[in-house]
This record gives sequence, C-alpha cells and structure tokens, in this order.
Amino acid sequence: MAVVNGYKQSENEKKLNILNLPELEQQAKEIIPTGGFGYISGGSEDEWTLRANRKAFTHKQIVPRALSNIEKPVLDTTVFGFPLKTPVMMAPTAAQGLAHAKGEVDTAKGVAAVGGLMAQSTYSSTSISDTAAAGDGAPQFFQLYMSKDWTFNESLLDEAKKAGVKGIILTVDATVDGYREADIINNFQFPIPMPNLTQYSEGNGQGKGIAEIYASAAQKIGPKDVERIASYTDLPVIVKGIESPEDALYAIGAGAAGVYVSNHGGRQLNGGPASFDVLADVAKAVNGKVPVIFDSGVRRGSDVFKAIASGADLVAIGRPAIYGLALGGAQGVQSVFKHLDQELEIIMQLAGTKTIDDIKKTNLLGINY
Amino acid sequence: MAVVNGYKQSENEKKLNILNLPELEQQAKEIIPTGGFGYISGGSEDEWTLRANRKAFTHKQIVPRALSNIEKPVLDTTVFGFPLKTPVMMAPTAAQGLAHAKGEVDTAKGVAAVGGLMAQSTYSSTSISDTAAAGDGAPQFFQLYMSKDWTFNESLLDEAKKAGVKGIILTVDATVDGYREADIINNFQFPIPMPNLTQYSEGNGQGKGIAEIYASAAQKIGPKDVERIASYTDLPVIVKGIESPEDALYAIGAGAAGVYVSNHGGRQLNGGPASFDVLADVAKAVNGKVPVIFDSGVRRGSDVFKAIASGADLVAIGRPAIYGLALGGAQGVQSVFKHLDQELEIIMQLAGTKTIDDIKKTNLLGINY
Amino acid sequence: MAVVNGYKQSENEKKLNILNLPELEQQAKEIIPTGGFGYISGGSEDEWTLRANRKAFTHKQIVPRALSNIEKPVLDTTVFGFPLKTPVMMAPTAAQGLAHAKGEVDTAKGVAAVGGLMAQSTYSSTSISDTAAAGDGAPQFFQLYMSKDWTFNESLLDEAKKAGVKGIILTVDATVDGYREADIINNFQFPIPMPNLTQYSEGNGQGKGIAEIYASAAQKIGPKDVERIASYTDLPVIVKGIESPEDALYAIGAGAAGVYVSNHGGRQLNGGPASFDVLADVAKAVNGKVPVIFDSGVRRGSDVFKAIASGADLVAIGRPAIYGLALGGAQGVQSVFKHLDQELEIIMQLAGTKTIDDIKKTNLLGINY
Amino acid sequence: MAVVNGYKQSENEKKLNILNLPELEQQAKEIIPTGGFGYISGGSEDEWTLRANRKAFTHKQIVPRALSNIEKPVLDTTVFGFPLKTPVMMAPTAAQGLAHAKGEVDTAKGVAAVGGLMAQSTYSSTSISDTAAAGDGAPQFFQLYMSKDWTFNESLLDEAKKAGVKGIILTVDATVDGYREADIINNFQFPIPMPNLTQYSEGNGQGKGIAEIYASAAQKIGPKDVERIASYTDLPVIVKGIESPEDALYAIGAGAAGVYVSNHGGRQLNGGPASFDVLADVAKAVNGKVPVIFDSGVRRGSDVFKAIASGADLVAIGRPAIYGLALGGAQGVQSVFKHLDQELEIIMQLAGTKTIDDIKKTNLLGINY
Repeated sequence: MAVVNGYKQSENEKKLNILNLPELEQQAKEIIPTGGFGYISGGSEDEWTLRANRKAFTHKQIVPRALSNIEKPVLDTTVFGFPLKTPVMMAPTAAQGLAHAKGEVDTAKGVAAVGGLMAQSTYSSTSISDTAAAGDGAPQFFQLYMSKDWTFNESLLDEAKKAGVKGIILTVDATVDGYREADIINNFQFPIPMPNLTQYSEGNGQGKGIAEIYASAAQKIGPKDVERIASYTDLPVIVKGIESPEDALYAIGAGAAGVYVSNHGGRQLNGGPASFDVLADVAKAVNGKVPVIFDSGVRRGSDVFKAIASGADLVAIGRPAIYGLALGGAQGVQSVFKHLDQELEIIMQLAGTKTIDDIKKTNLLGINY
Repeated sequence: MAVVNGYKQSENEKKLNILNLPELEQQAKEIIPTGGFGYISGGSEDEWTLRANRKAFTHKQIVPRALSNIEKPVLDTTVFGFPLKTPVMMAPTAAQGLAHAKGEVDTAKGVAAVGGLMAQSTYSSTSISDTAAAGDGAPQFFQLYMSKDWTFNESLLDEAKKAGVKGIILTVDATVDGYREADIINNFQFPIPMPNLTQYSEGNGQGKGIAEIYASAAQKIGPKDVERIASYTDLPVIVKGIESPEDALYAIGAGAAGVYVSNHGGRQLNGGPASFDVLADVAKAVNGKVPVIFDSGVRRGSDVFKAIASGADLVAIGRPAIYGLALGGAQGVQSVFKHLDQELEIIMQLAGTKTIDDIKKTNLLGINY
Repeated sequence: MAVVNGYKQSENEKKLNILNLPELEQQAKEIIPTGGFGYISGGSEDEWTLRANRKAFTHKQIVPRALSNIEKPVLDTTVFGFPLKTPVMMAPTAAQGLAHAKGEVDTAKGVAAVGGLMAQSTYSSTSISDTAAAGDGAPQFFQLYMSKDWTFNESLLDEAKKAGVKGIILTVDATVDGYREADIINNFQFPIPMPNLTQYSEGNGQGKGIAEIYASAAQKIGPKDVERIASYTDLPVIVKGIESPEDALYAIGAGAAGVYVSNHGGRQLNGGPASFDVLADVAKAVNGKVPVIFDSGVRRGSDVFKAIASGADLVAIGRPAIYGLALGGAQGVQSVFKHLDQELEIIMQLAGTKTIDDIKKTNLLGINY
Repeated sequence: MAVVNGYKQSENEKKLNILNLPELEQQAKEIIPTGGFGYISGGSEDEWTLRANRKAFTHKQIVPRALSNIEKPVLDTTVFGFPLKTPVMMAPTAAQGLAHAKGEVDTAKGVAAVGGLMAQSTYSSTSISDTAAAGDGAPQFFQLYMSKDWTFNESLLDEAKKAGVKGIILTVDATVDGYREADIINNFQFPIPMPNLTQYSEGNGQGKGIAEIYASAAQKIGPKDVERIASYTDLPVIVKGIESPEDALYAIGAGAAGVYVSNHGGRQLNGGPASFDVLADVAKAVNGKVPVIFDSGVRRGSDVFKAIASGADLVAIGRPAIYGLALGGAQGVQSVFKHLDQELEIIMQLAGTKTIDDIKKTNLLGINY
C-alpha cells in the first residue's frame, strides 16, 4: 500500500480469478479509498443515465444461430490500420493513480498483454511517455481535454507524437463537469498529481476538484476546434462524446478520423439517453466513412457483441478495467480484458459469427424489455 | 420556533447546502409538523399521478450535443414582457405558513433574490400587499381561486393590482379538492389564518379542512368566467390547470394571456396523466399564441430543460421551494432556486444550448423506459 | 360472532370509516377465517391476471378538464330500464356467509340503501326470496350457474321471478373452476349451506369444494343455452364472463339483453388478459345494442370512470363489498358503495363530466405505464 | 440415499402432492447436492435470458372463450406419427443421475405412465438401452450431441435404433457451453458416469466439467451435418436449438423431420431472446412443413397453451421434471406431468378449446406487460 498525500494506493500485482465484471465493483470498493471510489464509480445527478447505460443492452437481443458452420471464433480486428487481438479497448480514464500506485503504466502493460488498444487520458496519473513506454510497442491513443491555451494543446499533441502514441481522442462532451453527487458528498479533490497538467501555471491538479480541473479546459468547442487539432497533428483524431448523428457528421466534416460514441459513462448529462440506445443511429449516419468506437455501460461479452452489431468497430471499457487495476495491477487489467474476451468468444460461437466482421453483419432482435 | 394555534412553525433563516432537491423532502419532514407536511407533500388517492409526474420525465431524453460552440449559458428570459434571470418560477402554493413563520413573505424575498417570478396563492398565509412588498420590485403574479362571490373575486383582483402584482393566475382545476388521503389520515385543518379569506363572512380558513375551503370557491367554471375576469382586470390572466389542447384553446379564446399546464402536483385528479406527458401536445395547440407555464414534478435541471424543450416558457416549482422555506426561510428558498439554476446551466452547456430559446429549438429523444 | 359448522362468521353491524377500498382487504383478513378469506381474495394459478386487473387501469388516463362549466355531478343512471342512484352495482358473489352471518341479506340492504343494483349468486348463503325481500324494493338480478339439470335451472328462474328479481345474469366463464391455489393450500370446503342447491339431490354444497360444486354445473355452454334460457324467462338475460368481441356477438345473437365483461376477478383463466384491457374492444363490438356491465379489479372511483369511458354502462364490485360486509354488515356494504361513489363524484367533477352520459363521451389517454 | 463418488443421490419413489411446478425448485434444492443443483437450475451469465424465458409468456394472453359449446377437453395428439396422451414431452436433459439414483430410467417410466414422449440425452446417466427398456413401449427419442468423431456418432445412432428409439434430436446450439456461473462458483464436475461416452477414449465424463465434455463434441455444425445424420439414420431427425426462421429453413432444407425451438433453458446464449418471443416467427417460417417442438421456461398449463397457440406441436419441460425425479423418482416425474396436464385441461376448457388442434387455431392477445 502506497500513500500519497494521505491517499492509500493499492500496490497489488496478481492475476484475478474473475467470475464476471460486475462483481469487481464491490471488490474494488473495499480497497479503493471512499473519495477515489466515488469519483470512479459515480455518475451524475441521480444516475438515471448511468443505470440506463446497462439497461439499454436488454433492448436488443442476439439471436442464437446454430447451423453456421463455424468454430474457434477469432477476435482479431484491424482498426485505424492497427491490427488488434481484441475489439475491446481501454477507454481513456482519468486519474488511475486513485486505483493503483502504478496507475496508467500498469494499465498499459495489462492492455498490451492482451493485444488491445490503450488510451491515455489528459488527466492521467502518469506521464505520456511513461505510459507509452510501458505499452511495449502496442498501440496507444492519447485523449485530449482541449485547453483554452493552444500552446498547451499543441505541446501535449507534440509530446504524444514524440512518445509514439498512434492517435488522438479529442473529448468534447465535458466542457463542464456533470453534476456528480458522490464527489460533492465526499468533497473529493484529486490527491494524486497529474503530470500532463504541470505545463499549466496553475499546478498539477493535486488538491483540486473536477470542476476546477475542467475550468481550465475549453468550454466552447466546435467543428473549427476539431479542424484545428486535426490540422496540427498528423495523428488520426477521433472525436469522443458523440451521441447524435448531427455531431457525428460535424466531426467527420471537420476532419475527424473516427467517431467515439459515449456519454462519458453516465457522468455528464444525466437525463440523456443510454449510449447504446443511440449507437445504431449514429453509426448509420457515419455510414462507414470512419471507424466508430463505443463505450458506456459495457460489462459483458454480449454487450460487446451487441455494440459491434449496432455499428461499433471498437468497444471500450473504463471502470471494470480500473477495478481490475486496483485489485491486481497490470495482471489484474489483463485478467479483466481476458475475461471479457472469453465471454465474447462464447457469444460469437453461439451466435454463429466467426469474425468481428461477421458480428457487424448480424441483425439483432428488438423486443423491448 | 413560532407556535400558532398549537402548530409549530420554523423560523430558520439560513443558506442551505443543497445536494439535490429530492432529498429536501426528508429533511423538511423532520421540522414540519405531521399535518402540515402531509398537506404539502401528499397527492390524491394512491398517488399514482404524483409518482407518474416524476417518472414521465424519463420518457424523453436530452441528447448531449458536443460540438455546439457555446459556453457560459445564460438563463435570462423575458416572459409576459418581464425580464427574468431564470425560467424557473415559484408556483402559487397555498398556506406557506405551514412551513415557516414568515410564509410567503420569505418566499417572495428568496425568489426576488434570484431574479425569478413569484406567484402568490389566494390561500396564502400572508396578505397580498405584505407579500408584494417583500418582493423588492421583482415581478409577482397573484393566483385566484375563483369564489362564487364575484364581489370577493373583484376585490382580490383590485387588491392585487393595487399591491403592484403583475399578472393573475386563475386556477381552474380545483373546483373540488382531490381525494387526499394524507389529510384524511391526519384529520388536517389549516391552523394558520389565510388573510385573503377574511373578506368572506365565513372567516379566515383557520380550523377548516381543504374541502371546506374549496366549498366556498366556484365549482362551475367555464370560458365565460375566464372572459369575465380577463375583462375586469387589465393584468394578464393566465389559466392554470390546463392538461388538454381543448382547454388550452378555450382559455385562449376567452382571453387568457397564458396557459399554465399543471395537474396541481398530483393533488387533484389521480388517474390523470403525468403533466409532462401532456405538455408537448398542449403546447402544440397553443402554438406560440401565448406563453406556456408548466409545473408538476420538477426536481432537476434536466426536468426544467425537458419542459422548455417540450414547449414551456416558464417552469414552476412548488414543494421543493416550500421545503427550502422550512429549512432556511428566504435564504433557503433562494438556495433552492440557485441550485436548480446551477443544474440547469450544466445541462444547457452539455446539451449545447446557450440560451432559453436554444432549448426551445431542441428535439428530445423519446425512448420509453 | 356466529359459528356454523365450526366456521366463525362476523356479526358486525356498523358504518365504516373508509380511507380507501384497497385497505379493506387487510382489515377483513383479520376477521374472516383463513379458508373463507383465501376463497374470497384468491385468484387462479400465480394470480398474474388478478394483478393485471389492477395494473391495467394505469394503461389509460383521465384528462382533467377544467373549463367545463359543470358542478355537482350526478351519478344517477338508468340501465335496463331501472333508474339507479349509482353506476356501481354489486357483482354476483358467491357464499357471502363466509364473510358475515347475515350474508346476502345484509349485502342487499346495503346496496339498496345507496340506490344501487344488487346481484345474487346461485351459490348464495341465503335464499333468493330472503335476499330479494331484504332489498326493500330496489332492483335485484339473479345470477345463474347453469346446471346440467334443466328442471333445476327452470325452477331457479321461476323462483327468481317469483321473488321479484328483475334480471338474470347467466355466468358462462366458469364451466370448470380456475386453478385456485389458496383453496388447495387451505383444503377449502364450503362450511355454510347454499340454499339454492338444496333442490339438487346432492345436497346444499356444505362440505364441498368449489370443484365439486362446479361439477354439478354444465360444462358445455353455447349460444343455444343462452337462447333457451332467454326464451324460458321473460326477464332480461345478461351473459357474464365475456372477454371477446366474438362471444359478445354470440351472446347478443342468442338473445342476451346485456353483456357482462368480466374475467371473474382473476379467479378463472390465469394468463388471460386483464378485464379492463379488453373492455373497449368488446364494447365496440356491442356497439350500443345492449348494455354492458364490467367488473374485475375495480377499487377506485377513477377505475369506475375509466370503465364507463371505455364502454361500460354499469360497473360491478365484488371483493371490496364483501370486505365491507365482513367489517360492518349492511352498513359496511353501504359505506363501501358510498365511498366509491364519493371518489367517483370527485373524478367526474375534475374531469368536467356532470353525468354518466358525459363520462361515456370522454376520450381517455393511452400512455402505457 | 445412494452415494456415487461422494455425491448423494436421492432414491425417493413416491407420488408428489404438487401445488405448482415453480415451487418444486426450492423443494428439490433441499435434496440435490449444491453442485448438481447449480448445474441443473443455473443459466448462463447473469441469467437475463433465463428470466426472460418466464417473463415472455406474459407478452401474450389467452382470451377466455365462454360460449364454445365444449366440455372435457382432450390432450391426445399425434406427432411424428406417434399417438400421445399429452402434448407435453420430456426434454432431453443431461445427467439425471444428479437428481436421482435411477436417473433416466425413472424418468422414462414416469413419462410412459402419462402417455408422453421421452427424450434421452447423449449425456445421460443411464444407457440408451436401459432407458429405452424402462419406457415400457412408449415412444422415446434420442438426443445427439454430435461428436467430432463420426464413428462415435454413427455408433450412437445405431445403438438408439437398436434400442427401439423412434427419433433423433440433434442439438446444434451447444457447440460451446454457455458461460454458466453457478458451475464455476461450485467448481462443478460431473460425479456420475455417462455410459454413452465410454466409447470415447477419453472416458465416461466423470470428473469432467461441462466445458471439457462439450470440447469432445463438434463445434462446427452446419446443414451438411444435419444432412449426413439424416441420411445415415432412417429415424426422423429433429434439429434442436433453433431460434431463427433462417436456421429453421436451413434445417428443413437439410432433411430435418422437425424443428425444436429452444434456447437451451437459458443456459447457452445469454442476451439472446426468450424462446417464447421467437416461437411464432419460427413457426411461421416452418409453415407446417414439419412439426415444431418448443421448450425453455414452461412451468404452467397456460404456458403450454400459449406455445401451442404460437405454433408448437409439442412442448417440452426439463427442470420441473428433474425436480420431480429428485423428489419422487418415476412417480414424481409422473406427478409433474399429470399436474401440468391438469392445468392445461382447465385452461383449454376456459379458452373454449376441446382439442390440441383447437388450441392451434386460437389467436392470442398481445398486450405487452
């Protein structure tokens, strides 16, 4: 157990014996300090959208297909030109030092071990280069919370490029922070520094709440900003936080190389739709022009399958991986992804789909429960 | 703590540290005497419509809009020619002396402090002029429960006008009282006098139940009554308790300057629709001819947003403000409105809407949960 | 407390202070012996249809109508040529001696006191003539469970006619008894004799279970039977247990003077639709040719309103009246009907309907909850 | 109580006093060891599909039909040329030695006693010939989990034929095992040998988990395999595990003599539709070309009725019969089938259907609850 500014960080390093991802939350709660756990697990307001994110998957069903002549389904896929061993990627999740002393470095190792794609957050607890180095050559993306200060934005883009990061995820749905009651109840302030913020004059995030952190970020974001970032960097720019066909088209029109459908895990606009409920319409608007990434509420192999069948090319998880990180470090993260892959493989076989492309061609049923 | 006829009134005067409006109910329950609390919080019959009022907001969702190029949303709006700092107004709520010794006077102060619109009830615990004076120049409306006695109606309209009130809200959905079980269980009778009733020969309401009070009011109300009141006063007359396109058109045809969609907070016709479920159809019928006010079940900034996006120009709250009054007097009321405005601002930013007019142009999703 | 064959019967005679009808069930449970209470309250199988009977009323909503120029709604109605003071009638409910020593005699008195219509059951605990005499000139119907023995059927029809009964309700939905688990658990056998059965050689029902009782009744019932009964008696014959447009038309074609929509209070075909869910379609098929009676699940004034607005001319209650009988005898029954009338009056006023005919012209909303 | 490899098997032999099938699960839990009970009762993942299998029956309702002129409904039906006394058959359920020392032998006796159809599983605890001999001349089917080893498949088909089995059920929905959490929690391994597996070199299944067992089975199954099996045997081949119109047509095209709609009791693809929710569409595609068998979630006579009205010719039960086996051996199984038949008879009478063919002509209502 490491202690930073009075905050106790897990130093676990072990494989996990995972029954299912949902049960990790309770286990993680026992070792992550209250404030950190509230920040990680919580949604905004009364968490209706957070719960809807899970419930929405029951709106569609996967029809078992029994006579499909397939065996040994393969999870390999190539997205943005990167060959991956799994369509499940790591969502850019902030402040992983809240869960583990090694933070994003361990997450990167765990994700690399399964051949997945890692995304770093602007608000990481480890530096871009440290996280990148830990990834062992596996592809990583860097997520940018756009600052009001373009020098800062550009320096982060430069640093990401230099560190070997392969893509930029520009988050646009967090121009203010959602009203997160757990953080208010816990009077939560980040105890762990955020190395990427040290280039600000205002410090490294330590001792600040999420509202203050976001205050340094740009509130006014539009297609022109996407365009400017896409022009500045030669990395592909994926716009994250898209929940409407309109915004997807704005993003693509502005040069986005990918559309990331997400409601920020139910942490931003409560009263908004479940992310899965809008995925198919957004994907239809994108119409294959660029890859689609999806997150928010994914906990089961069947969720991953349903998302891909609804138009996603990659499906990201956040909280479950963070819980795995807390419980087992890099190996814990690896266990989480392996478990989800295992569930997905079973579903693929039973749904008669040998490849990720087969999933994409699958029609789901829509009996509303 | 003041005591009137054995009823204990709060005298709190303090800012409230509000997490969310729903939690105020439990806090208020601890300081408002049982009978008063039952009267304030209760609905009619088994409270199906009361609960539906909350549930209905989940029938529509606000799509996060990420690339809208906006920041610092403004809540200012002008309705009935009055510039307001917030689209959230105070519903005309009876007998506020049940919650606080200062009653409507404190509510008026709290509402004025946030730049909102205050509505007084015929059954106020303070007089029209006292409440009006407390409002510090901020606009106030006076709500009329039409009496069978037109001399009485006219004298109240005169008094309102004289006190500087800017509009009349004519409540038409309470020609009898809904079957409110809490009041029956508590054998509730108003312990606090109602100054506006002293012009009746029957007294000031003290010691009477709501059924007796309503018995003095007119049961038979139609467009001609709206017309007569609208002709008598030169103040704008808003008809409250409209739940159908038909009644909205009757009201407008009879000279109403506004339509107030409400089911009386689930206190009247149980088994009727949730107020939010009918708002869009009523607003469509009104078609911009006059402003639309909405209430019943509003507790969150997202509710306010959804109501405005469904056609409301103003959104009123009742119970939460009364709980704020009990817990903190004028400052408590102010805290309630400020909190709701804060939630609304966050939603507006995340929904990509800078102004109240932008909200009006927003299309909600309709995935039924 | 009277005791018959070891079964304890209530002898209460008092007005009841009723908050609402649903709460009577628990109160009655405390004074009705277990076997009797199980028989009265239970439904068939897992009681899905019993519960659906209540839930179905939430499928439709009554729109408050505020500007309707009405007051003092009147519940008077004339059905089958009989002027009634209320559209709520007593359902033909068996074996009321289970609830009270005076049985149907007291029920008849209570119903007469409110100016309602009483229906006796073939399986009554009191004789046709005794019950009829207790009704004090108020109209009564006699419900016939058709026997295999036509001599028996005809003698009952003769006896009913002689006793001054005004109509025959022919129950056709109970050709076998539903699978009622409470009766099986309690090993329930009727402890109280059924005078109408003494004309059978097999006895008076005492000591028999409902399956044995029904075994004496005809299982094979069709339009020809309706026709034969309608030809035999000059009283109007209402066919009870209709849940489909087809059966309604068969009944009318065979000479039925009325159609009684009911699923026997959820006691027969579990897995069948809620009675309210089929009412509108049946009434549409009937198309005003004969009056429509409705029962199953009615507990609130709003339920009565919704049923009438959906095509019912009369709305019957069973269990709540029986609970009132147990708790207060004739006065208890009267209290139950008065309470329901009171709730209905409030709903009528708030829905802008002065008469029962006005209710019939009302369109309900259909927002599914 | 017999003990095999430390596993305690029931040796009960008695008629059961059954209130309803759902309550058997709890009773059986008390006498079946934890691992065995988890294997029998469990579904896959979070058991959403398992629960949906039950819930789905509420999506359709059986309209009571009162004037149908019928009595004494008969359950006799002829399917695949076999006259049966009931449309309810025994699903091919594995490893019945987990429930009772006599295993499938007792089940076969119980099913024969009610004149039903018995299906043996490849993974039976008793041999094909022993089970067949116990059936006393009543028709039996043999269910095949197709092995990778065609010699093995053919030898089982030969053995079934030789034992007098009348049909082959080819299960195609279990090319891998669903992710069954109960088995993982219990670290479940089959304690009882599976005689049909001894022809494998790998042993008799004892001490293996379900994943290992399935690993010996073919994963890659397509229409060609159906064709090959249908050509090899002159018994009718029914394909089990069909949930889509497409697979039904593939199966028929490949020579299937029947289509068996099932989601394996919610044990395979969790996140898939309830079996009843897809039945009508599959049956429509089959269009009477071959008989349709249905299972998954059947517990009530009304479920059987709804399935037949939706296109099933036979309706199978699994778990309830196994619970009956544990509680009462052959007589317990008989009691379960008799109880379900009794419920079905009541429903048939109340729905106005005298024969199984009448049920097939019945239109269900579709009010979604």
